[in-house]
Amino acid sequence: MSGRTTTRRKVYRVTISPDGPPETSARADFLAAEEPLGIRVDGTALTMTMRTPGDDIELAAGFLVSEAVVRSPADIAGIKICDGVSCGHGGDHDGLGNIADVTLAPGVTVGAGARRNFMTTSACGVCGKASIEDICVLPHAALSADQTTFSPAVLASLPDRLREAQRVFTRTGGLHAAGLFTASGEVIAVREDVGRHNAVDKIVGWALLGDRLPLSGSALLVSGRASFELVQKAVLAGIPLLAAVSAPSSLAVSLAEEAGLTLAGFLRGPSMNVYAGAHRLLVA
Amino acid sequence: MSGRTTTRRKVYRVTISPDGPPETSARADFLAAEEPLGIRVDGTALTMTMRTPGDDIELAAGFLVSEAVVRSPADIAGIKICDGVSCGHGGDHDGLGNIADVTLAPGVTVGAGARRNFMTTSACGVCGKASIEDICVLPHAALSADQTTFSPAVLASLPDRLREAQRVFTRTGGLHAAGLFTASGEVIAVREDVGRHNAVDKIVGWALLGDRLPLSGSALLVSGRASFELVQKAVLAGIPLLAAVSAPSSLAVSLAEEAGLTLAGFLRGPSMNVYAGAHRLLVA
Repeated sequence: MSGRTTTRRKVYRVTISPDGPPETSARADFLAAEEPLGIRVDGTALTMTMRTPGDDIELAAGFLVSEAVVRSPADIAGIKICDGVSCGHGGDHDGLGNIADVTLAPGVTVGAGARRNFMTTSACGVCGKASIEDICVLPHAALSADQTTFSPAVLASLPDRLREAQRVFTRTGGLHAAGLFTASGEVIAVREDVGRHNAVDKIVGWALLGDRLPLSGSALLVSGRASFELVQKAVLAGIPLLAAVSAPSSLAVSLAEEAGLTLAGFLRGPSMNVYAGAHRLLVA
Repeated sequence: MSGRTTTRRKVYRVTISPDGPPETSARADFLAAEEPLGIRVDGTALTMTMRTPGDDIELAAGFLVSEAVVRSPADIAGIKICDGVSCGHGGDHDGLGNIADVTLAPGVTVGAGARRNFMTTSACGVCGKASIEDICVLPHAALSADQTTFSPAVLASLPDRLREAQRVFTRTGGLHAAGLFTASGEVIAVREDVGRHNAVDKIVGWALLGDRLPLSGSALLVSGRASFELVQKAVLAGIPLLAAVSAPSSLAVSLAEEAGLTLAGFLRGPSMNVYAGAHRLLVA
């Protein structure tokens, strides 16, 4: 990670009191850094994400896996970060944002499906209605072939293991984290970001560039909630189990069921809820 | 709100035990509904957002305020929701997603700036570096003219008031909320969504359509964290104070300072942190 993961800022701490005026003290506090990263593929701007700087090459690579543009390291010819300095164009840049310049291997293209976030396709030619098929890019290999089982006791231990591995959260309280674990609970990789989806993309991109995809047999834990988008990222990376500290959405559960992903939520203390794929936890 | 705000699902509750095998029970649980909404403007697809169904017209209107496309109700000629039923095209739709079809008033257009999320513009013609100016659409009227002050005691009471006003959270634990309050702490509007930005867009759109913009003198509270995007939405709606239950990002604070917005975070019990615009709280 770069040194820009956190920034220091002057903050007023205000505490109200039933007996008098509020007490105010000024102090320096750490904030989670948030800056834009543009992702450009073969010279064309594909998207921009607000992210915490660091692991930007992995983030761009993971985003392309999540969009089903690439699935092996050979699909990417190169990724350069153009920040106005490293690309040789100094000028008057203020250092706030970067571009990840991706060159795909010959024959690999950004298809219409990969641009689903931009709604260039629509299911119904008449009224343009969006449906789950429009927004969902399922992988060729079904996740249901992954027969790894996970112990509920190991799963219950993951939130503590993730917090231990997080370096920034305790300073800022402002970063989401994603952790990849083995079925026995060992940490494989942890990434942090102001956006959960970015933290997951950074892990998936790290795995892609190290030729570790699909991530069969592993578990992914995310802080916060489990959305449709996070389930899709896990499925495309071949991860058989996604766990969240908080609640999943309805569409997250639907997609998990359809794709054969085990989805657990509300991992708190000794308890958890299992919303899909309960067979991998040897329950039900 | 429609009846699709929550859905019921079968869930396994698993509790590990130090003395034996995990205990498992099956039950029905409520999940926050998440479905895609496409926003189409004058026949062209602009974006798609994963949102909780309900208040979709307000969501589309608020999104266009946040993108600086519109700033008064007269800028919109009409918004129709096309769900395959209300638009007269029944067919084989599965009810998962909708399209909000927006018609702008004559002379109102989606400028290049409004498409900043799609990175069709770039600051630097040489290396395409993104900067804060690319992603930031500041309003013509400076927020700093709004001289409303807020009492820290009222601010500290807002999280409880927001929770009281939330109908869905207690059932699902899975929805973000945004609440608009007067300076004396009365609830003006509350919206919930799987995405915080959608909850804020729903409030802003409600205000636009009721010709209540700018929302001078009001305070906006969001569950969770304060990102750059949320600060920008508050600024464009003319809201002088944004409060968050959790931490802000570095760029959220930078933009708040630049725009003259008061930004408070970590509203917990009697305490809060003030990151920008402390003068409105009569501290510092």
